[in-house]
Amino acid sequence: MNTLRDIGEVAAIARLIRRLPRRRDIARGAGDDCAVVRAGAWDWLLTSDPVIEGVHFAADAPPAAVGRKAVGRVLSDLAAMGGEPCWALLDVVAPPDTPAATLDKLYRGLLPFAARRGLAVVGGDLARGPRLEIHAFAVGRVPRGQAVLRRGARPGDGLYVTGALGGSLAGRHLHFEPRLREGVWLRRWASAMIDVSDGLATDARHLAAESGVGFRLELPRLPVSRAAAAARDGRSALEHALSDGEDFELLFTVPTARERAFAAAWRRRFRLRCTRIGEALARREPPLLAVDRQGAARPLTAAGYEHFRGAEAGA
Amino acid sequence: MNTLRDIGEVAAIARLIRRLPRRRDIARGAGDDCAVVRAGAWDWLLTSDPVIEGVHFAADAPPAAVGRKAVGRVLSDLAAMGGEPCWALLDVVAPPDTPAATLDKLYRGLLPFAARRGLAVVGGDLARGPRLEIHAFAVGRVPRGQAVLRRGARPGDGLYVTGALGGSLAGRHLHFEPRLREGVWLRRWASAMIDVSDGLATDARHLAAESGVGFRLELPRLPVSRAAAAARDGRSALEHALSDGEDFELLFTVPTARERAFAAAWRRRFRLRCTRIGEALARREPPLLAVDRQGAARPLTAAGYEHFRGAEAGA
Repeated sequence: MNTLRDIGEVAAIARLIRRLPRRRDIARGAGDDCAVVRAGAWDWLLTSDPVIEGVHFAADAPPAAVGRKAVGRVLSDLAAMGGEPCWALLDVVAPPDTPAATLDKLYRGLLPFAARRGLAVVGGDLARGPRLEIHAFAVGRVPRGQAVLRRGARPGDGLYVTGALGGSLAGRHLHFEPRLREGVWLRRWASAMIDVSDGLATDARHLAAESGVGFRLELPRLPVSRAAAAARDGRSALEHALSDGEDFELLFTVPTARERAFAAAWRRRFRLRCTRIGEALARREPPLLAVDRQGAARPLTAAGYEHFRGAEAGA
Repeated sequence: MNTLRDIGEVAAIARLIRRLPRRRDIARGAGDDCAVVRAGAWDWLLTSDPVIEGVHFAADAPPAAVGRKAVGRVLSDLAAMGGEPCWALLDVVAPPDTPAATLDKLYRGLLPFAARRGLAVVGGDLARGPRLEIHAFAVGRVPRGQAVLRRGARPGDGLYVTGALGGSLAGRHLHFEPRLREGVWLRRWASAMIDVSDGLATDARHLAAESGVGFRLELPRLPVSRAAAAARDGRSALEHALSDGEDFELLFTVPTARERAFAAAWRRRFRLRCTRIGEALARREPPLLAVDRQGAARPLTAAGYEHFRGAEAGA
């Protein structure tokens, strides 16, 4: 078996470069000190995300899925701004005894996945380290001034989420679809937006803090995933939907006056579920007010996933 | 002592974000899903580099110097294309028991260093992992079509290198100056360019392969650093100058017809040493032909630094 130690960095990089795409907007791809890319007058979106063995994936996860996850995470960030993907760099860290085939599979998983979504991998770096890691850096774009920020929600705006939430550790965290088409389309409707990567409760709190509002969350309306409903770990499906990370759905607000038109337009455009789960409140404290089936309201203290502290449950 | 585990990811990121610069070309900095940046019609340079504990720095290296190195490496890549720095993202990986003060020092080292060179850090990510790592991703720019690639050297072109080579492990690898002003200026003169990060022999080979030429290297002319000359490890100063990595000097070619004007212009513009060390040959094999003090020529088989294989000596 060929390991990275056997073939060395230069040969390993050459293998990877051969796989990279050619496109007219790539003036110079991998193989130089920097990639050179071209485009007209846009606002540029820059984002980066790591996926680290033992943190974002288990050692036995299929390399192709790990590669797709690395790319999927940055694509989800671009989607959450209403952005169109353009170019990416990948820094791969791997132990010297990594089979060369692992890197091949990783790239074979991620490159077509990226290309089909408009993202061209134009370079990166390969270095040795204690565990397998992929650091993806991506550039996307929006027409000038049209990025959907986290800070545009106003009191009264409806709060919506795409898809279903919770239980991603059962498998979906390696096989999610970044909501790119929805994100671009939502530029015309959303007043604020974020992707649900740290868990609904945590990401809704980010949206609240940035917008200077609170959110009233209708708990019975939360779209709970099948995986969350099937979990048998002593935590309720609702707890999973509120606090599991890596759903990679879009959480966004729509101004009240446009909500009816929005709901009709969404149904015409997408088959993907989109659920109104609450609304923005004028007062910031508590950031999240949870309303249960009986109509009782109480502050939601749940935390989502935080690095260094590890996952914390709650509701 | 506050560790990252004590303060958690959200608070740790908030501390870092407060330090980031504000600039008119940053429409939205850290704190959203992506950074949003603006600029006119240029060619964009994208580059990324990791610095990893135990690989690119020792565990006892001062965090401020490690941060500067992370930024310095991508700046050196931009310099090697003739680029002007614009924006960067930083992915930091750290063990949970990392003192929060370590991250503070790291940012305190790198942010002013980056800002003074025109590079604004606009975001990034913080995740836990087994060792301290910084993955820097940078965007730079050149006027359209003016990037200096590795592949423009023609037979007869003079081969030049800035500064002095070898022995960077003695300290310089943490305290180098990316040759940005020189790189921008060289857009008007250089036919091909690379930065010396893997050692002169390896990087000259990259330049040769990309340009489809060979290089004749005049060994007695190599500018040997004081650190390389002072090394007492059984390898000669010349071996150090040829094969040590992380010099971060610029290696470039100038067309014969312009060499005289170039040398005079350089001396007027810079005090930094710039040495003609050889010239491009029409034949590609061997990629490097070394000429010694006696005028004897032989193929140079030395390797520079390669990840996974580790450093290899030779000459």
